[in-house]
Amino acid sequence: MEQRAFVTRRETFNAGHRLFRPEWSEEENYRVFGKCSNPSGHGHNYAIEVTFEGPLDPITGYVLDLRAVSDVVHKRIIDEVDHRNLNCDVEWLAGQVPTTEALANAFWERLETDIPQNLLFCVRVYETEKNWAERRRNP
Amino acid sequence: MEQRAFVTRRETFNAGHRLFRPEWSEEENYRVFGKCSNPSGHGHNYAIEVTFEGPLDPITGYVLDLRAVSDVVHKRIIDEVDHRNLNCDVEWLAGQVPTTEALANAFWERLETDIPQNLLFCVRVYETEKNWAERRRNP
Amino acid sequence: MEQRAFVTRRETFNAGHRLFRPEWSEEENYRVFGKCSNPSGHGHNYAIEVTFEGPLDPITGYVLDLRAVSDVVHKRIIDEVDHRNLNCDVEWLAGQVPTTEALANAFWERLETDIPQNLLFCVRVYETEKNWAERRRNP
Amino acid sequence: MEQRAFVTRRETFNAGHRLFRPEWSEEENYRVFGKCSNPSGHGHNYAIEVTFEGPLDPITGYVLDLRAVSDVVHKRIIDEVDHRNLNCDVEWLAGQVPTTEALANAFWERLETDIPQNLLFCVRVYETEKNWAERRRNP
Amino acid sequence: MEQRAFVTRRETFNAGHRLFRPEWSEEENYRVFGKCSNPSGHGHNYAIEVTFEGPLDPITGYVLDLRAVSDVVHKRIIDEVDHRNLNCDVEWLAGQVPTTEALANAFWERLETDIPQNLLFCVRVYETEKNWAERRRNP
Amino acid sequence: MEQRAFVTRRETFNAGHRLFRPEWSEEENYRVFGKCSNPSGHGHNYAIEVTFEGPLDPITGYVLDLRAVSDVVHKRIIDEVDHRNLNCDVEWLAGQVPTTEALANAFWERLETDIPQNLLFCVRVYETEKNWAERRRNP
Repeated sequence: MEQRAFVTRRETFNAGHRLFRPEWSEEENYRVFGKCSNPSGHGHNYAIEVTFEGPLDPITGYVLDLRAVSDVVHKRIIDEVDHRNLNCDVEWLAGQVPTTEALANAFWERLETDIPQNLLFCVRVYETEKNWAERRRNP
Repeated sequence: MEQRAFVTRRETFNAGHRLFRPEWSEEENYRVFGKCSNPSGHGHNYAIEVTFEGPLDPITGYVLDLRAVSDVVHKRIIDEVDHRNLNCDVEWLAGQVPTTEALANAFWERLETDIPQNLLFCVRVYETEKNWAERRRNP
Repeated sequence: MEQRAFVTRRETFNAGHRLFRPEWSEEENYRVFGKCSNPSGHGHNYAIEVTFEGPLDPITGYVLDLRAVSDVVHKRIIDEVDHRNLNCDVEWLAGQVPTTEALANAFWERLETDIPQNLLFCVRVYETEKNWAERRRNP
Repeated sequence: MEQRAFVTRRETFNAGHRLFRPEWSEEENYRVFGKCSNPSGHGHNYAIEVTFEGPLDPITGYVLDLRAVSDVVHKRIIDEVDHRNLNCDVEWLAGQVPTTEALANAFWERLETDIPQNLLFCVRVYETEKNWAERRRNP
Repeated sequence: MEQRAFVTRRETFNAGHRLFRPEWSEEENYRVFGKCSNPSGHGHNYAIEVTFEGPLDPITGYVLDLRAVSDVVHKRIIDEVDHRNLNCDVEWLAGQVPTTEALANAFWERLETDIPQNLLFCVRVYETEKNWAERRRNP
Repeated sequence: MEQRAFVTRRETFNAGHRLFRPEWSEEENYRVFGKCSNPSGHGHNYAIEVTFEGPLDPITGYVLDLRAVSDVVHKRIIDEVDHRNLNCDVEWLAGQVPTTEALANAFWERLETDIPQNLLFCVRVYETEKNWAERRRNP
């Protein structure tokens, strides 16, 4: 019988961000986003965990070579966000409030074009060890 | 297309407990629960991870404001169990053997009345780094 | 209403391994498996997390006694792989490339014969803190 | 030239405790120890890290065999405190307020009689991931 | 004989920063500080561990009440740096390059005025899980 | 007054090893080294933490640029031991029993020739999360 598995790769990056809507006043932003809206911004040590689901290749024993996954995650995501400001330095995040759940969705969209069809299962993004978000494959 | 995500908040507390049934003898309790039934009790550094699933608010980028979640988890759970004995100090645990899986179910019930409908997805409770339990939303 | 939960137990072991196919040349193995194919082998601090899903016993509050689970995981898996070489010391891994996803499947098969029917839900194997694999119960 | 090193072994246990002085009123205990004085007690997942300093044996490459250290730590400490209440179940802690720093000192005294002379360097005790205490060899 | 111990308290905060000297060109800053000098800044999940050394109070068993320590660390440090930009929002860091070792020294100076004499032993600051700095009491 | 600090960089690698003396019988090796002497070897996810002590450069705020440290650690250590067998693949470990304390000493000697004089303070090597060793600068 065919063997299937979920495989996950974890990568990390550091970035700055601020939660605010530019059309709102500083007070309105503070009311909604609290200290996360402080005007000079702050930042986090982010972690991203990318999970794939599929059959094991009977020759290599791999669902996917996670070294290749690491390369894709670096090329499509880490190289663009590491040591950057997520509000103003990343073209494909422009116009979004960079919450953790918005990042999980944006990272999913960056990856799915480069990952063999139907294998991508979950993108989890840790903002801190106490807060994280995931986008999962539709059931 | 609507964006959806899972978001999780982790909180911690310390509590004492003992696994036993009062109608059983000490020997019978030891046979079933082992050293977890020691009469003077012991305790743990518990962690609780609460996960929500739903659509992102297009204005805030939030599924839920996790600061509000933290407030609810503190008010409904942490404030009642932290530095308490789970066998005798917590009214809504009375009469239960406080196993990790029983705590996960009890915490779920405490939260679901205060969480906007259908968002609660999972309550995970860590008793140690080697043992944990979850209650998940019915599929 | 019946209460249900997922419960998980984590155990660890250390082992050596090498990713290669014996019928291939050293160059061919390096092309596919990279430094993981180095002829003298290397190794890892593995962790295994075994998850069960089922109803809580109304008397004990347990889905399963995790001490009994720990015993089964030790007898069926850890005692056979700890401080061993996964390529040549473990009969029931013979002929497989010991990738993390292959280990997750092999460990699942070792456990399901000793676990009460239908309770086994997931076997997760960590090769490092950045790479892991899971086999889950068929939906 | 002789090689020297520090080697450390980490072990864990779970226990209950309460910070209070029996000759004080409940209010006085609360004023000094806060919620740590709650009368029914609470507990922690403790970790203990024992460090030794000395020369490497030129034959084995060991300062000390850490498996033997683990045995001593279990026999002298873990077997007596694990799943126990530190206020009332442990003879050699009787009459002490079981703070983390008091435990570090008590554990040091339990170990130094069984450890070859002058090798014991530090006993660190974690009460939580945010609080710990050490007793170190006098300089 | 008097008992002595080291006790440590860990706290966390999130902040933004940028490593650069304003009198240098962007190229010169990049040559010295690399991507840490990116003009829009980035940030980290910082942790601070404050260690004290002294005798145990024979009545309470405490070197210091770590809840009081936590209050001091919050009042003197966390409340001023959390969710702030370390380059421009914190008066007592003005004019410094906010490296981890500079933060350890600045935090030490903030604490030593509020900590009973001679007890402060070490201030450790984690910028990431791979980089940290300490200032220790002079030997 | 001059500011001084300790700064640390953590790096990781995976390797295989076996504890044994070739001139001893398999039984004698098992008696001394236990399962760590299993003939086919096993392995670990090692971590190395390198600590430096010295004055802060008043211009950069650095004791040492940890990115340069990372480069040295990779060139002198990681590139030679990662995914290797420590008994037979590493010239400068030949003839040694690769215990954690022997690795800490060998890594120290590899680094001190490339690190500016007197800055190297400690090399810590983790074999597992429960066992580690350090070589520190002579007092």
